[in-house]
Amino acid sequence: MSKDTEIIDTGASVGLVQRHTFTFGKTGDTLKLESGRELASVHLAYETCGTLNADKTNAILVCHALTGDSHVAGYYQEDDPKLGWWEIMVGPGKPLDTDKYFIICSNVIGGCMGSSGPVTRNPEKDKPYGTDFPVVTIGDMVSCQRRLVDSLGIEKLLAVVGGSVGGMQVLEWSVRYPDRVCAALPLATTTKHSAQAIAFNEVARQAIMADPKWNGGDYYESGRPEHGLAVARMVGHITYLSDESMRHKFDRKLQDRGEVSFDFEADFQVESYLRYQGNKFVNRFDANSFLYLTKAADYFNLENQYGDGSLVAAFSRAKCRYLVISFTSDWLYPTYQSKAMVKGMKKNGLDVSFCEIEAPWGHDAFLLPNERLDKLIGGFLDRVHAECALGADNEI
Amino acid sequence: MSKDTEIIDTGASVGLVQRHTFTFGKTGDTLKLESGRELASVHLAYETCGTLNADKTNAILVCHALTGDSHVAGYYQEDDPKLGWWEIMVGPGKPLDTDKYFIICSNVIGGCMGSSGPVTRNPEKDKPYGTDFPVVTIGDMVSCQRRLVDSLGIEKLLAVVGGSVGGMQVLEWSVRYPDRVCAALPLATTTKHSAQAIAFNEVARQAIMADPKWNGGDYYESGRPEHGLAVARMVGHITYLSDESMRHKFDRKLQDRGEVSFDFEADFQVESYLRYQGNKFVNRFDANSFLYLTKAADYFNLENQYGDGSLVAAFSRAKCRYLVISFTSDWLYPTYQSKAMVKGMKKNGLDVSFCEIEAPWGHDAFLLPNERLDKLIGGFLDRVHAECALGADNEI
Repeated sequence: MSKDTEIIDTGASVGLVQRHTFTFGKTGDTLKLESGRELASVHLAYETCGTLNADKTNAILVCHALTGDSHVAGYYQEDDPKLGWWEIMVGPGKPLDTDKYFIICSNVIGGCMGSSGPVTRNPEKDKPYGTDFPVVTIGDMVSCQRRLVDSLGIEKLLAVVGGSVGGMQVLEWSVRYPDRVCAALPLATTTKHSAQAIAFNEVARQAIMADPKWNGGDYYESGRPEHGLAVARMVGHITYLSDESMRHKFDRKLQDRGEVSFDFEADFQVESYLRYQGNKFVNRFDANSFLYLTKAADYFNLENQYGDGSLVAAFSRAKCRYLVISFTSDWLYPTYQSKAMVKGMKKNGLDVSFCEIEAPWGHDAFLLPNERLDKLIGGFLDRVHAECALGADNEI
Repeated sequence: MSKDTEIIDTGASVGLVQRHTFTFGKTGDTLKLESGRELASVHLAYETCGTLNADKTNAILVCHALTGDSHVAGYYQEDDPKLGWWEIMVGPGKPLDTDKYFIICSNVIGGCMGSSGPVTRNPEKDKPYGTDFPVVTIGDMVSCQRRLVDSLGIEKLLAVVGGSVGGMQVLEWSVRYPDRVCAALPLATTTKHSAQAIAFNEVARQAIMADPKWNGGDYYESGRPEHGLAVARMVGHITYLSDESMRHKFDRKLQDRGEVSFDFEADFQVESYLRYQGNKFVNRFDANSFLYLTKAADYFNLENQYGDGSLVAAFSRAKCRYLVISFTSDWLYPTYQSKAMVKGMKKNGLDVSFCEIEAPWGHDAFLLPNERLDKLIGGFLDRVHAECALGADNEI
């Protein structure tokens, strides 16, 4: 019924992978956050696939979306039923080809999948930070990733790739560290949330904060705000699909019944699906972390941060090649937002490829099998690899 | 900032109005509901404006939207700050011209504005019904309205008018009681909810039911699920606006601050607005009633109920003239849904006018001042009045 239950042939896998932890800050190298606050010690969970070449020019950083993690491809044990979240894109012979490239993916700061965030133990109080954890930004996420890249001895990333909130990190990388990136691939993303996108996030946050178990964020011993978090996920989930894809998947089909129930059970498949998604999410995600990550996405505003309100001014800092991709049915980050960023890039004479891919699946399209997407990304990376990593002039 | 605070010149008012209550069922005339359950006694709150003519041919029934009420125009006391919800449309010289027409508006069954619903005292338990109240349908709402119309001695309504869930009632009237309606004006509506519309309603219901104070619907003595209901309203509210109207109204403007807060307060105006809308709603609406009315809207399926899945078959029962109106930016009930109903009507040779009005305000557009809308409705009613009420052949 959903992509979770469809059997998708993901092709050859990178196989066994291991999660690593990178820690910084202990030796006086504290992280100064955009809020002005500092963190003395930061952990980033990360994974890698493929092999870093001798001159370290084949590294691609993959940035995950809102509630993603570092497990981008492969599996942890031989019998692990769960493959990496971008298994269709990352592996031998795939667009992010692990026979050629060294892939890095780290969990963002503020997340709950191994990196420092509200779940992390606060050394000053000997309990999880909760909402004492500082509010982080997309810039802070990228600043942490840069230190990870430094620690791997990589001077310049061949590419930074990501969709949705991952795409925001890609854009941030290209402008914040212009000398550290050959190519940037922002997919299904935006340089700033619309009022409508902020509104959906705010409703989701309010659902969590309205749950009495949220308790101001201090719930790690008293029991988690599961109901609120499930509702928050349901709101988000609708925005990841589209009117058309929901009609195609569910239409008005009933769930395990021939007639409506005349009560408040889940009569329709779409209701049952959303309840399932909400409950499943609760098992893997932290409610506070959801608050932090949605806030970071809402705060993101590339033109304000780097261009005093002008996208042209913001991208005047950039030096990389871009592949910008949007999807026709993505109403969370509609194509007009991608077109605006492309215009800002082109006005600076940057090398930009842009494609709006015809796809009915809504915002989630960047995570689903799509031959067009594969070819665009694979072809673009081949070109970048030839021009940048294989000895050509690194500047455009 | 919102339409609540904008000062709109609503023109001449019908002035003082009074709310009446119509009761039926006491004398054995029980209401048999579509669920199979029966209600022995039903109250409908209703209001009227204008004067019913001697031959009772100038009556127009206005059907309110999801959370509306019978107070369609005028005020209850001279110093009443709150005018009727369709003041811009109903009054002397307005499209629903009270100098010509007798306007009736009743609160739907299942509502909480004076009609029988979950708030009503259950005689068997001597406390409010809560979720013991039977689940009602759009057909049940219309069936109650028909008895009210009967009680007023009106054999045939000149017109039935309504937007959104009110428009569903209009469609239901035209097919359920084809001999009782000269003209039907379904505005910004649909013959059945899409999966996406059901999804939004389900999230709103889950927000209410996740609130521990909801207590299975039995909260009238223990305290209402205000947090859940506020979140539910916030979800709904987003679907009533549009990406464009939210950008126009709020964009990314901050609320009472020059910089973002780096905490979980409402940084953006759109957040503050949604919180305000949520809290305001809680003061006027009952959470259980919200569950009942959204469920009725989700169940509505004109083609299944009357046409075995075919809109053409469903409208083969109809005899009235139609004015169907949709709005370009209404993504809750997009124009393609209006076009489908128009096709079904036309295939039956019915007299149908259809217009998609260019408006950026989203689904709410039918409630906002719009010269085009005024002219279309006023002109259509003039024609209907001339053809039906003023002595011409009542059949088309």
